[in-house]
Amino acid sequence: MDNNKIISSAVIRRLPRYYRYLGELMEGGIQRISSNELSTKMKVTASQIRQDLNNFGGFGQQGYGYNVKSLYDEIGKILGIDHTHNMIIIGAGNLGQAIINYKDFEKRGFIIKGVFDNDMKLEGKTISGVLVRMTDKMTEFIMENNIEIVALTIPKKCAREIGKIVADAGVKAIWNFAHTDLNLPDDVIVENVHLSESLMRLSYTIANKSK
Amino acid sequence: MDNNKIISSAVIRRLPRYYRYLGELMEGGIQRISSNELSTKMKVTASQIRQDLNNFGGFGQQGYGYNVKSLYDEIGKILGIDHTHNMIIIGAGNLGQAIINYKDFEKRGFIIKGVFDNDMKLEGKTISGVLVRMTDKMTEFIMENNIEIVALTIPKKCAREIGKIVADAGVKAIWNFAHTDLNLPDDVIVENVHLSESLMRLSYTIANKSK
Repeated sequence: MDNNKIISSAVIRRLPRYYRYLGELMEGGIQRISSNELSTKMKVTASQIRQDLNNFGGFGQQGYGYNVKSLYDEIGKILGIDHTHNMIIIGAGNLGQAIINYKDFEKRGFIIKGVFDNDMKLEGKTISGVLVRMTDKMTEFIMENNIEIVALTIPKKCAREIGKIVADAGVKAIWNFAHTDLNLPDDVIVENVHLSESLMRLSYTIANKSK
Repeated sequence: MDNNKIISSAVIRRLPRYYRYLGELMEGGIQRISSNELSTKMKVTASQIRQDLNNFGGFGQQGYGYNVKSLYDEIGKILGIDHTHNMIIIGAGNLGQAIINYKDFEKRGFIIKGVFDNDMKLEGKTISGVLVRMTDKMTEFIMENNIEIVALTIPKKCAREIGKIVADAGVKAIWNFAHTDLNLPDDVIVENVHLSESLMRLSYTIANKSK
């Protein structure tokens, strides 16, 4: 793989989907697949698949197809999930709980080390085995436990303040569910999940399809 | 607006963000804004803003800027949120509850008419005032209540089956949180929220930034 090459964000958006399909093929005991077969399954063109994977040096052999397991492993490496990431959740509401309970994240190497909230009634309780701590302990915890990723599942009004605190504590990346832009320095990676915006795209499609 | 023009999905992805910023400007009592000022706030270039909005006929006047309220209303119309949409949630777990409790959706016109689950213990209970019904009542409810949108917050193993049932019942659009492709006919609109994939994009960025 050419480390200096800039990969388009569209390709990066598609990589996890390749990873998912390859994982399902492996579960189904399939060891080898052609780009044409993968194309039919994933409903994208075979040339798109070849082009996307060529960004990383290409993994197929002409007339031979892809080795499912090794392509899966390679994409896992590219996605940075060939090793674990320590993560905390800030906000122990329904959304925070949903993330803790979703066991797939841990399977992918995202280890939830703790959950933080400012509701004193929750202090010391556990959610699926994860201890709830108060937000004033956040900075210390992040530093002592080598926390790389913070999931922010809190209302937007306090999101920027909390975002700044965790960035100052050394967190590399924020998975932001609060419906606001965090406005952090550029070296902090932010991946937004704005559910309202997703729902508006849905209604846009409804409105423009029925015309 | 030219109805025959095809708007790129990148523009559509950005529209809800314009809408959010304009809403915040209105809340702050600001009536008029130039593309340069909006550009600084939103951290996109002014020319990008002008280009994006020109897709819909452009709403600004040279040297005069945009009227915040009327641009907000126009974008609301384009996004199809100038009228209400009836919605149900399938899956009364944490994620389903988070969606019900998030009051912003209703403010945008997405009216949650009911929540469905197959856990008999939940039958007849309410979540934030929304009654939980059993999934065998789904089809009838969709037909009788003019349900346009279904949010699927269930595990992937039953998502395709449920997706097919609600599509057959006449639902136009599915907001799919299950981590699988639904494989429905093309006339059913599907907007996926795949949290695992979002988290993998985050780890991709971490992996490729620290190189």
